[in-house]
Amino acid sequence: MTIARSKMPPNAKSVFKGKIFEVWQWEQKMFDGSIEIFERLRRTNSVIVITTVGDKILIQRELQPDREVPFLTMPGGCVDDGEDPLSAAKRELLEETGYESSDWTLLNEFRPYHKIDWTVYLFVARQGHKIQVPHLDAGEKITSRLVNFEEFLMLSEDESMRNKELMEILLRARLDPKKKEELRKLLF
Amino acid sequence: MTIARSKMPPNAKSVFKGKIFEVWQWEQKMFDGSIEIFERLRRTNSVIVITTVGDKILIQRELQPDREVPFLTMPGGCVDDGEDPLSAAKRELLEETGYESSDWTLLNEFRPYHKIDWTVYLFVARQGHKIQVPHLDAGEKITSRLVNFEEFLMLSEDESMRNKELMEILLRARLDPKKKEELRKLLF
Repeated sequence: MTIARSKMPPNAKSVFKGKIFEVWQWEQKMFDGSIEIFERLRRTNSVIVITTVGDKILIQRELQPDREVPFLTMPGGCVDDGEDPLSAAKRELLEETGYESSDWTLLNEFRPYHKIDWTVYLFVARQGHKIQVPHLDAGEKITSRLVNFEEFLMLSEDESMRNKELMEILLRARLDPKKKEELRKLLF
Repeated sequence: MTIARSKMPPNAKSVFKGKIFEVWQWEQKMFDGSIEIFERLRRTNSVIVITTVGDKILIQRELQPDREVPFLTMPGGCVDDGEDPLSAAKRELLEETGYESSDWTLLNEFRPYHKIDWTVYLFVARQGHKIQVPHLDAGEKITSRLVNFEEFLMLSEDESMRNKELMEILLRARLDPKKKEELRKLLF
């Protein structure tokens, strides 16, 4: 499931740079030869980590200061400037859960939204083990728990699930026994 | 499947207004009492239309001037300033396909991305009939075709499918016979 990259056109110019989002615009030649201003965003890439511990998978319930309702999510966060996605995934897992792993694989890359130049990297961290307490920042309240593979698949019925890319993977694994076994082998 | 609205906080200020996207920022009190600048986007809402014709469903292949590869989609587009979603759905269906219908229902509302204040309205337009040729704008190349209900569900295997919200509905209908029959009854 590879999604075509929509790179910024060579004549695109950054017109605004915010905290997370940068706005780019360019003159686009239309099918009839006329010109219109097109707009696309860029944002920092992000990582999601599926961590296995024995035959279990680590999931999180997270509260953020600008949201009233907690949501279900996997460890992860933003890739810092100059950081590679794997390093970001290791850093976020350690900060949010206190876990580390020596067996990492990149499962998939997603571009969630065609008007944003933004890639989400989905990693698996096998046989994680806890080496420290979580170091949460002031914008995070996170509790972790372990679920088995079947419970993990059924997170696709949880409406508070934040990771929409993972949702589709879980639904497809429930739909197709072959895909389910492939996912199980990738994780364990 | 209702998704909680993430309205803009009362102290948020618009810091940039582009062609499609508007950037808002506010001072957010963190869990430890410290203050950070938070950022969220607003964009025009959009509509998607599932149109039935007899026992068939109308789907489209679309090419845009800034994309090399055509993609699969349903009729739809942006809600204009001051326009209600149903009027936008009727207008977009007529412009893109030349079809109209006198039997409309709002199936669902989605908020695709938690950092964007943006609602997608999914409508069904039953027993559509063609009353004119499509009036495409200079940024659209669109061809329509009719598929049956089973083919419609299997669009969830098409990687060029643009409407990710619809993808999840199709997967869930394939997964659960009860949901499949509910969807069939909603459409026909």
